[in-house]
Amino acid sequence: MSSSSRDFEQLWADLVPVGRSAASGGYFRQPWTGAEVELRAWFGEQAEARGLAVESDGLGNLVAWWTPAVEPVETRGVVTGSHLDSVLDGGAYDGPLGVVTGLAAVDRLRERGFSPSRSIGVSVFVEEEGSRFGLACLGSRLVTGTTSWEQARELRDRDGVFLPDALERAGLSGGEGLPAQWNLGERVDCFVELHVEQGRDLVDRGAAVGVGSAIWPHGRYRFDFAGQANHAGTTRMEDRHDPMLSYAMTALAANKQARLVSTGSTSGGGSTSGGGSTTGGARATFGRVEVAPNGTNAIPSKVTAWLDARCDSEDALTTLIAEIERLAQERSGRDGTHLIVTAESVSPAVHFDQALAGRLAGVLGDAPVIPTGAGHDAGILATAGIPTAMLFVRNPTGISHSPEEHAEMADCLAGVEALADTLEELAR
Amino acid sequence: MSSSSRDFEQLWADLVPVGRSAASGGYFRQPWTGAEVELRAWFGEQAEARGLAVESDGLGNLVAWWTPAVEPVETRGVVTGSHLDSVLDGGAYDGPLGVVTGLAAVDRLRERGFSPSRSIGVSVFVEEEGSRFGLACLGSRLVTGTTSWEQARELRDRDGVFLPDALERAGLSGGEGLPAQWNLGERVDCFVELHVEQGRDLVDRGAAVGVGSAIWPHGRYRFDFAGQANHAGTTRMEDRHDPMLSYAMTALAANKQARLVSTGSTSGGGSTSGGGSTTGGARATFGRVEVAPNGTNAIPSKVTAWLDARCDSEDALTTLIAEIERLAQERSGRDGTHLIVTAESVSPAVHFDQALAGRLAGVLGDAPVIPTGAGHDAGILATAGIPTAMLFVRNPTGISHSPEEHAEMADCLAGVEALADTLEELAR
Repeated sequence: MSSSSRDFEQLWADLVPVGRSAASGGYFRQPWTGAEVELRAWFGEQAEARGLAVESDGLGNLVAWWTPAVEPVETRGVVTGSHLDSVLDGGAYDGPLGVVTGLAAVDRLRERGFSPSRSIGVSVFVEEEGSRFGLACLGSRLVTGTTSWEQARELRDRDGVFLPDALERAGLSGGEGLPAQWNLGERVDCFVELHVEQGRDLVDRGAAVGVGSAIWPHGRYRFDFAGQANHAGTTRMEDRHDPMLSYAMTALAANKQARLVSTGSTSGGGSTSGGGSTTGGARATFGRVEVAPNGTNAIPSKVTAWLDARCDSEDALTTLIAEIERLAQERSGRDGTHLIVTAESVSPAVHFDQALAGRLAGVLGDAPVIPTGAGHDAGILATAGIPTAMLFVRNPTGISHSPEEHAEMADCLAGVEALADTLEELAR
Repeated sequence: MSSSSRDFEQLWADLVPVGRSAASGGYFRQPWTGAEVELRAWFGEQAEARGLAVESDGLGNLVAWWTPAVEPVETRGVVTGSHLDSVLDGGAYDGPLGVVTGLAAVDRLRERGFSPSRSIGVSVFVEEEGSRFGLACLGSRLVTGTTSWEQARELRDRDGVFLPDALERAGLSGGEGLPAQWNLGERVDCFVELHVEQGRDLVDRGAAVGVGSAIWPHGRYRFDFAGQANHAGTTRMEDRHDPMLSYAMTALAANKQARLVSTGSTSGGGSTSGGGSTTGGARATFGRVEVAPNGTNAIPSKVTAWLDARCDSEDALTTLIAEIERLAQERSGRDGTHLIVTAESVSPAVHFDQALAGRLAGVLGDAPVIPTGAGHDAGILATAGIPTAMLFVRNPTGISHSPEEHAEMADCLAGVEALADTLEELAR
């Protein structure tokens, strides 16, 4: 076992207890709250212990720089990294694996005696999951200017706290001027994010590590069903305008329509590649619901539900959403309820730098090149014009965003080797 | 206009702003919290202003006694009253109408120069709606011993606060020994609750006031659907165990089955009286849902939903619940989720004292005698053996448990006259 393997295992063990729920075994690491603040402090200590110079910005995004002893020829660095926040009751790997592997890869390169010709940075972006303020990849969006501070400052969490107030309470100044501060184009040559796979492609292909090709287009849509509150015990069934029923039918319809796309049976104009394949098709999920007044003996006045939908092409996504909304409106009409659908965010497909992906797949011994349905900070940076790649580490069950999320230690260590190889290739 | 009419309007106006949401126009008067505490203090002041002696118990239940000047022959009093708490975002009338009408009826009787031969009490029972601790009629249940203090002390609100702690914070001692303290059998001759109607029976019958005949059997059932949390973007549709889908189908099935009972089309063994009538049939409602982790990009690990069901007979209710559970289990099996159904409370039918109802209907000029699907403190007292009657005041839309709940002032004043007539009849 190399010393960097021991380093990785020790680093990993440090993180296991932080923000873990004893009840579920899952993680609650919402940005700018206890566990996540603790993790970012831990990252700072680890960087310092390695002699890496840590930069922080007004959001709490971090980069720890390994700068060559000799003045480098290339002024632009190679950056790797991921995030430390989690979804509510999430797994241990989604995010932290990429950060810990970044630190361990630096250790591994030093162990190899590698001397980089350009700086190598290990980064942490905040609020990647959007679990608190509802906008995924908030940290990288603000850094790249994809989202402006004027938009972000209006965001509120579930308790009604505005983002600037949450930042102030965490001792941070906010995000105005972040794109200029980061100056990505001048300072970053390329970005590589290592992440646990969130599907079973690598299991099917028998590979511990893969290279990312693309991120599916992805949208989040809020469905507001308004009905008429009334007494559950006395209101005749035929006198009701119950938004719960409109919602329930919509949740079933979304699932059915996504399955139709996935099996290529839709009559719509969308792509229907890969019926039943691991990469083709569509996903549609209602995972969040809020009911008012949410009382056992009251017919609700309002049901708000969020649809997460992704397809392997933008046309397919547009068709899928249109069909789900059509069926939802039809049912609302029958129930005498009123439906408004709002697209809260729609992200187009991201295609990672093809030449870079091919080069890395070669360096990694013909690693498979696969797409993903999940959004990542890497997607935001790629869209902003930074040459970007992703590495995925095998996930035996494919389960993610769950306490059951897992990766074998051997595969994690293979990830450390692969990221070290990648950084060596890019910073040699 | 009689002076007691003016009294009623003034009393009513006092209550309008208390606990009202500016956003919805609905009321939030949860027990032992700000607005409800204010209302009970107001009641105490009103009783004092009338020279009524107020008794309070360890829960905050209140009775204001009008005791005859001359030593009464009859030691047992006539009690009227209702409650001051509301459902979440409820209407103005459900509960307070009965309390305010009780005070106004005392005013009216004094205006008439009536001299009672026994005490008349105006009562307020706490937590009638069960909106905070989940058990409806908590105050009257504890007073009658229907629920023991040992059971009640284990109740928690949504924030995890135990009932004894909530009471302590409100300066109350709790409920041990309440049945003995109240000594209902020795002190209460009969109980009359006036309430806004929560349906449209009186509208159909063209009557401002009616007399209650019975309360339908009623059950609350918790449906715990357990699935497997996973990433909404990457998990193939066919790999999911999504409890939201099992729940959605169950919500639709509950509605459909209740409609089948109401139109007499069920093949089950239940009563099918009154197809389409205002009083027959069944109600089934999922008005409260909690999702874990409730994140937009996570397939839920768990969906918990509460079914409120009522029928015009106990057999019909049993059949209805069995059929809904059968369909829910079938769907859970197909989804690969796991369902546990728990009956949180099941209340048998309540038949009010028939002789008393007939007598009051006569006194009130052949007022209609009608059943209700809603539970009331009157039902708890009737079941505990106290001769009990209800009066209903017409509700033009039938809407209740909603900001839109309404009764016309003329009908409310007719309610004051009817309750005064009733008390005069019972306490003469």
